[in-house]
Amino acid sequence: MDLALSLPNIDVDTSDEVLAAYASDQGPVLDIARPLAVIRAESVAEVQQVLRWASRTGTAVVPRGAGTGVSGGAHATAGCLVLSLERMNRILEIRPEDEIARVEPGVINADLSTAAAEYGLMYAPDPASYRISTVGGNVATNAGGLRCAKYGVTRDSVLSLDVVLADGTLITTGQETFKGVAGYDLTSLFTGSEGTLGVVVGITVRLRYLPVKVCTLAAFFPNLASAAAGVLAVGRARVQPAIMELLDGETMSALDAAHGSTLRNRGDALLLIQTDGYGADTEAEVVASALGALGGTVSREGSAEALELVDLRRHSRGDAVHTELRVGEDVAVPRSRLVSYIEELHRMARDHRVRLKVVAHAGDGNLHPTFWVETAEGSAAALRLDAALDESITVALAMGGTITGEHGIGQFKLRWLAQEQGEEVRGLQRRIKDAFDPAGILNPGKAILPR
Amino acid sequence: MDLALSLPNIDVDTSDEVLAAYASDQGPVLDIARPLAVIRAESVAEVQQVLRWASRTGTAVVPRGAGTGVSGGAHATAGCLVLSLERMNRILEIRPEDEIARVEPGVINADLSTAAAEYGLMYAPDPASYRISTVGGNVATNAGGLRCAKYGVTRDSVLSLDVVLADGTLITTGQETFKGVAGYDLTSLFTGSEGTLGVVVGITVRLRYLPVKVCTLAAFFPNLASAAAGVLAVGRARVQPAIMELLDGETMSALDAAHGSTLRNRGDALLLIQTDGYGADTEAEVVASALGALGGTVSREGSAEALELVDLRRHSRGDAVHTELRVGEDVAVPRSRLVSYIEELHRMARDHRVRLKVVAHAGDGNLHPTFWVETAEGSAAALRLDAALDESITVALAMGGTITGEHGIGQFKLRWLAQEQGEEVRGLQRRIKDAFDPAGILNPGKAILPR
Repeated sequence: MDLALSLPNIDVDTSDEVLAAYASDQGPVLDIARPLAVIRAESVAEVQQVLRWASRTGTAVVPRGAGTGVSGGAHATAGCLVLSLERMNRILEIRPEDEIARVEPGVINADLSTAAAEYGLMYAPDPASYRISTVGGNVATNAGGLRCAKYGVTRDSVLSLDVVLADGTLITTGQETFKGVAGYDLTSLFTGSEGTLGVVVGITVRLRYLPVKVCTLAAFFPNLASAAAGVLAVGRARVQPAIMELLDGETMSALDAAHGSTLRNRGDALLLIQTDGYGADTEAEVVASALGALGGTVSREGSAEALELVDLRRHSRGDAVHTELRVGEDVAVPRSRLVSYIEELHRMARDHRVRLKVVAHAGDGNLHPTFWVETAEGSAAALRLDAALDESITVALAMGGTITGEHGIGQFKLRWLAQEQGEEVRGLQRRIKDAFDPAGILNPGKAILPR
Repeated sequence: MDLALSLPNIDVDTSDEVLAAYASDQGPVLDIARPLAVIRAESVAEVQQVLRWASRTGTAVVPRGAGTGVSGGAHATAGCLVLSLERMNRILEIRPEDEIARVEPGVINADLSTAAAEYGLMYAPDPASYRISTVGGNVATNAGGLRCAKYGVTRDSVLSLDVVLADGTLITTGQETFKGVAGYDLTSLFTGSEGTLGVVVGITVRLRYLPVKVCTLAAFFPNLASAAAGVLAVGRARVQPAIMELLDGETMSALDAAHGSTLRNRGDALLLIQTDGYGADTEAEVVASALGALGGTVSREGSAEALELVDLRRHSRGDAVHTELRVGEDVAVPRSRLVSYIEELHRMARDHRVRLKVVAHAGDGNLHPTFWVETAEGSAAALRLDAALDESITVALAMGGTITGEHGIGQFKLRWLAQEQGEEVRGLQRRIKDAFDPAGILNPGKAILPR
């Protein structure tokens, strides 16, 4: 089984540094595994060739975009091939009148938006990682983002996928039109399947109109509860903001420390809101008035400040710090539960003696609490952190929430999946997996629970 | 196998008139089949009981909402049970702060919107049949509608489904939050599966804000080509209308004859556009100016006239006329092909000597051409009609389109499905069907092609 001999003309990399670099994504690593080789495919034909070989030899294949996922969906498993799509990064076509684009999976999200902007269009899904993550990776996790309150998640922009199946067969799902209901919705099934059903090698997306105007409001509140109440007030005013982000005091302090900003002086909680389109000004006035009535200090940000604020928010995950053990969560709860869920989070942090900061895509009820402890505190602290995470999940589910709003199950969140989905649903998912990948070579141990 | 004895306490109807009434939906009937019985279920438990019995006895089950589908998805097959969900018609819950509603499948679409309006909310998907079709039926076909240009199709509003599987097992898919990516997207898989994978018995939908303002524009054009060009001009002006309908001269004449309106005097083609929300006025001005520049005669309709116009459009299918053999189509093409596709349709009508009228959800590129001949002309005319239909499908596919934008495959469109989807895709769909319904009792002969 000499891989290089079996796959002539394909760049099969088995160097130590590359194997190490591609062994994990940005998710927590439970046990590090060394891939057999890393292949950075250059074409659809190469992907097919690799999968045919993997099928023949029963070798696991872990598809990978930019490796920016945070649930371990692209972690290597022992002896696997890591199949990176990063070199397949061409924008194949933008058709402005049809308002669609066709891209290879390795195109960086931001690059597609930049290219679309020349035609007054945008690619709406904008995960915080949009400057470094690929459209293919976004499809694999059905990534959300800041703008999905108004424009939907990745799935809502994907019209058609080219997918290489486990046995190397190439199929095309969906259609190039905005609507289409012929047969089962395979496009949605592959979207969010984290590379366990097939390898996405081509993507046709719907583009949206680049807003003619964007207004950014910063509303600082004396406490989180009143900020969360503001989210519901905006809804009652029947404004659908493009972005509605909630940042707590700890998050603002962390941003101030890292970037020299002075957010924390202005309040204990921040609602960062963008309205867009022809109604942006009017909507911003309506929002400002609704939030002012709740005690918010609302300022209309100029374009430079606004850009900076939204940019800061996108960086609020922060960089990894070696002296801290951190885990970012991704639960979602029904919007009315935002206040009580955040109160519960603070109680958990006290009970388990861990640090906590919270940001939320508040318009969607999607929260990213980050818990952390000092590495120096050792394994007892790590256990407390784990206990806090477990409780944050249990409480979110009890409120009618989900364990993952937009990051995916990957490898890291498998431990909680059975709390959300009963055996019948898990069984159906396994039956789908078996129908698509009977030998189980595609990204094994990710996304769904085994028997 | 006495059905009534096997299902005590369930109302099993085998009367001739009910069997006849439930033998077909509003789609063309290829061969009429008599059901074994009609069951109008009253509860989830009854649906489970029926499916357990059907599984045990290998009896086909045809789930049915209001029977308003137009592709024959609810046509009876010989010896089947028709399982109507029409009596399960309660709105279980509206949670205004969470912006969601939970309903039984038999709720009429318009009733849900009316109930939501009390909270300033709306259920966005609005098929032309919204006053008579059920939410469950809309889910089964992934129904579109007028407003989906802006608000998306049924799938985009469905968060969670309660589904009874072929063996009677009850599962819940998805989540009550706006976002959620745990496991495969079963919610999207069931949506549009036309009752072939399971019976939907409960639906949680996302509600949207009832627009604070709606503006309606009627733009009459001297010909279809300039009206279709108007669709692209609105896009270039970066306005996303809520509704953008295109009606041709024949459609206007038919509406005038049926309703006493005087549309046809005003032009050869009509673009009917609604903008909504806080930017509605500004958007309407932008649209009016863009369409005026293309030679459109644009009027801003007062609310009574506007309602009437949109209502007329919803009735543009017209009622069945016994002296005419009519078939309405449902293709979609990329938006830039609207003009050339409509030109092709007219050529086909001439070539095959059939009558033609066209309406389109133009914003989505989704066209509903209707072809018809006089019944008195006999079978030769019926063959010409069929030939025109076949050609309309072939040409739409050649332009990158689909054979069904929103009506579903049902039974009637199976004959064209292999032209759109290759054997590999069809094979995957069958594998899914086998995984969900190994005995093939759920709505057999619909939605997907057999081996």
